[in-house]
Formats: sequence, C-alpha cells, structure tokens
Amino acid sequence: MTKAFVLISTETGVEPLLQEEIKQLDGVKEVYQLFGEYDILAVVEENSDRDVQKTISWELRKIKGIRGTNTMIVAK
Amino acid sequence: MTKAFVLISTETGVEPLLQEEIKQLDGVKEVYQLFGEYDILAVVEENSDRDVQKTISWELRKIKGIRGTNTMIVAK
Amino acid sequence: MTKAFVLISTETGVEPLLQEEIKQLDGVKEVYQLFGEYDILAVVEENSDRDVQKTISWELRKIKGIRGTNTMIVAK
Amino acid sequence: MTKAFVLISTETGVEPLLQEEIKQLDGVKEVYQLFGEYDILAVVEENSDRDVQKTISWELRKIKGIRGTNTMIVAK
Amino acid sequence: MTKAFVLISTETGVEPLLQEEIKQLDGVKEVYQLFGEYDILAVVEENSDRDVQKTISWELRKIKGIRGTNTMIVAK
Amino acid sequence: MTKAFVLISTETGVEPLLQEEIKQLDGVKEVYQLFGEYDILAVVEENSDRDVQKTISWELRKIKGIRGTNTMIVAK
Amino acid sequence: MTKAFVLISTETGVEPLLQEEIKQLDGVKEVYQLFGEYDILAVVEENSDRDVQKTISWELRKIKGIRGTNTMIVAK
Amino acid sequence: MTKAFVLISTETGVEPLLQEEIKQLDGVKEVYQLFGEYDILAVVEENSDRDVQKTISWELRKIKGIRGTNTMIVAK
Repeated sequence: MTKAFVLISTETGVEPLLQEEIKQLDGVKEVYQLFGEYDILAVVEENSDRDVQKTISWELRKIKGIRGTNTMIVAK
Repeated sequence: MTKAFVLISTETGVEPLLQEEIKQLDGVKEVYQLFGEYDILAVVEENSDRDVQKTISWELRKIKGIRGTNTMIVAK
Repeated sequence: MTKAFVLISTETGVEPLLQEEIKQLDGVKEVYQLFGEYDILAVVEENSDRDVQKTISWELRKIKGIRGTNTMIVAK
Repeated sequence: MTKAFVLISTETGVEPLLQEEIKQLDGVKEVYQLFGEYDILAVVEENSDRDVQKTISWELRKIKGIRGTNTMIVAK
Repeated sequence: MTKAFVLISTETGVEPLLQEEIKQLDGVKEVYQLFGEYDILAVVEENSDRDVQKTISWELRKIKGIRGTNTMIVAK
Repeated sequence: MTKAFVLISTETGVEPLLQEEIKQLDGVKEVYQLFGEYDILAVVEENSDRDVQKTISWELRKIKGIRGTNTMIVAK
Repeated sequence: MTKAFVLISTETGVEPLLQEEIKQLDGVKEVYQLFGEYDILAVVEENSDRDVQKTISWELRKIKGIRGTNTMIVAK
Repeated sequence: MTKAFVLISTETGVEPLLQEEIKQLDGVKEVYQLFGEYDILAVVEENSDRDVQKTISWELRKIKGIRGTNTMIVAK
C-alpha cells in the first residue's frame, strides 16, 4: 500500500470546480482546498508506487485546469 | 475577523493595471506592487476564513492576468 | 472547526523519534514521515484558527528537534 | 519614503515572544504571526532604502531567535 | 542610484533570443544566461527604485517570452 | 567533460510521452519520471559547459510540453 | 527495486569530506557535488521504498554535517 | 573562464561584516548586500568550473557566519 499527499497548483478561478472533479477519481481518498503556496491537496492511496504514479500521471494531471503537482510519498 | 496577506504572481506586462483592479474588490484593504519573488501583495480582511477564501477563489483569482496566489493567514 | 496540514523540517537523524512524540499532542490527528522537501506531515484539528495556532506555536514547535514548520490551513 | 514587508523565519518555540520584541523597533509599523512558509511578517517604513536596510541588518536581524529574513520592497 | 539583479524565467526555447532583446533596454547594464532555477540574469541600474520599477514593469516584463521575474534590489 | 542533472517541469498530462522524447537526444544519458517538485530528471553529459548549455537551450527546452528546467552542474 | 535522488544541504565548509563519507554507505550508488540550491546529490537504490527510507533516515541523515535532505523517488 | 553568481544566506546580524570578508577572496570580483530571499550576492570569476568550485567550497563557504550558498553558473 502506498499513500501520497499531492499538492496541486491550479489555473486561477477554477479551483472550487476542480476539487469536485478530483474527488471522483479512484485512488483519491480526500481532497482539500488550501491557503498557502498550493491550491488543492489530494490524498491518494494505491497498492504500489507504480499505481500512485499511474493515477497521478494518467488521471489527475490530465484534468483540465491543473497546472502542476508536487507529490510527497509517505515513507512510513 | 480574519486578515490575510495574499502574494500574487501575474502575467508579465500587466501588473500596474491589475493593481488598480484588485483595489476595487470588497474585502481588499491595501494593494502593493513588490520587488521580489511575487509581483503584487493584497491585504484582505473578512469576517471569517471562509469569507477570505470566497474573496480569493471567487473574486481575486478570477481577475484576468493573475497567474497564482500564495495566501498567508494571520495567526495572531 | 479548523483543519491544518503542517509540513515539518527536522534536525537530521531524529525524525523517526519525533514522529512518535508529535503523535502524543492533543489536536494532532495523524502524523506521517515523507519523501520530499519536508520530513514530517502532521494533520491538526482544533475548534478555531486560534487554537490551531496555539497547538503549533506553544506545543508542536516547542518539541526539540523541530527546525521549522509550514502550515497550510484548509480553506474548505 | 520606503515601505518593506519582511517575512521572518524564527527558531521554533519563540515566535510569540519575538513578535513583541520586533514591535518595539523604530521603523517597524506592524507585526503579525502567520500561517505558511514564514513565521512572522513585519512592516517597515523608513525614509530611504538605506534606512530600511539599516533597520533590518542592524536591529531586526540582531534579535536573538530570528533565523532568516526575506525582504520585499514596495515598488509602488 | 539603484542597482538591481533581476532573475528571469522564460518560455522554453527562446532564451538565447531574449538575451539579445533584453540587452537593448536602457537601464539594463549586463545580461547573462544561467544554469539553475532561473534562465536569465539582468543587471539594472537606474536613478531610483521608482525608475527600476518602471524599467522592469513597463519594458522588460513586456518582452514576449518572459514568464516571470524575481528582482533583488542591492541594499548596499 | 561536464555532467548536469536537469530537473524538468512539464505541462500536465504529457510527462510519460516527454520522457521518451527526451531520451532520444544526444547528450542525454538517462531520463527518469519523479515524485516531487519536478516531473522529470534528465542526466546530460557533454564535453563542456557550453555544450551542455546548447543541448538544454537548443534541443531539450525546444521540446513541446516542457515548461521549465532547473539545471544543476556537477562540480566534482 | 526503488531508486531515489537525494538532494542534500550541508553545513558550510564540510561538503568535500561529506561526499566521501556518503559514498561509503550501502545503498548509495553515486555521489556528486553540485552547483545550485543543494550541495550534494546522492543516488540511492534499495529493494523497496521502506529500505530507501531506512537508508536515508537511519544512515545518511545521521552523518554529522548534513543539514537537510530532499528525496525524489523515481516513479518510472 | 567561468563566471558564477553566488547567492548567500548568512547568520543573522553579521551580514555587513561578511560582505567585507568575502571581498578579500581571490576570485571574488564583486559583493552586494541584497533585499530578498538571500542576504549577499558574490560574483566569482575563475579559469574553470573546477576553480569556481574550489573558491566556493574551500574558501567562501569556510567563512564563519555563512549558512548556505546557491551558485548559478553563467552559461553564456
């Protein structure tokens, strides 16, 4: 099991809608809008690093309006 | 009462005009053009965190030419 | 209710012990060791921003071995 | 007249006391404790860039417990 | 006299041409392409902070292909 | 001989394809997709700093979908 | 198999000696001194994320003179 | 010939004295105190990357009061 916290920068003006869209993804357990350097935090849980990478590269980052991600894998 | 300092990155070449536009928003008390990593600083004051978030997500970040924001909530 | 994600930099060589110590604090709901720019992530929940600030300033940051914190308040 | 926003990182566990100490300095108009990458924000106003630099280098940064500063000069 | 070092991020693939264009600006004394977080460094000298700000906001940042700037004013 | 590690930010949704395209470049010895602040790491080896700069400015950064690069030259 | 690039900040004045010491660690395959935001890059390879974390937390970060680390896990 | 811009973070309260000390080093051509994320900028010129690295690792970073450096090599 791999857990990851994904800090997300979004295009401006769309972050409330994105929050809803990200919540629909399999593998995404929680989504929050944040004050700070990043706009949204998504908590991802998958069976392996490889599956986390797939969810982020092939699903999350393909959502229109997401500008960039910074993924922090849980080490323990 | 929640006070927040919002550091703003803008598209290049538009920051003097943006400064004027941001000043018009309710909840925005002061606006400055800066030297440094960010282009503009806006000081926001609202009744609650929730209202600060609304002003930033639904008004400030919807202004054309704003590329990103980093909001620092005053803790005390 | 205020929820906050606190990214923590620690002195080197002490982060596994700190993780245990941070878990003991009231107001801290979850603690993770991370790969990335920060060493530990703590999830804090309190009744208000003020209480989150007290937990971070007066308890969490007083733990020996913590070098710095970056707190992201949940906006929604 | 030069106005500057000084973002301050502090040693952990001392930031509430530092806030009071920084407030005593001539040239410092406002001081806030923040959530985010920095711990304290000081607003400095002096007659010139040179005087802002003196206040920061010779007074503010000499206060015990301040670890680093990031000064943003107001451009307009 | 105000001297400033302006760290510049550019669109990818255009930085060698931009270097030439930035060199043409009054107030710009030196221009370098860099390895690191930023792509180009421009050294600006003007009579005042205000004039540095004008050169950066109204000339340099209006050049097509410049994505962002981080200006460090020389304090002494 | 100059060796450089190039941290690359990409447009979202294209990083797996970019990884393949970057691998084709002369001078690029290894390419990895990363978790963290950057999306891709490329290891570049050329005869001189100048040649590293040419590969990065004239080839790598001209690939569509690359948003920015942070090059760290090996010192020893 | 998990591969990780570990960016390391060191105390000043000790980085050439640290480079030698880090090279001795099992799991560390390559070590470089860098120009840029970080001082040293170590390439770590272990059987799992868990083992990478052990090498970094329990061995690498316990070396005197290391101030902080930023670990980027290879996703693919 | 290799030219490098070295951004320097210093212990607080010592930066004006450090500026003088850094100026004495062979290979250091100019030194400035800055407003921004870094405290001092040193311009280094040497015959090669290797010599720049020696000046920075063996001389500049050995000066007491320097906390960290970020070196940007000039690419062209």
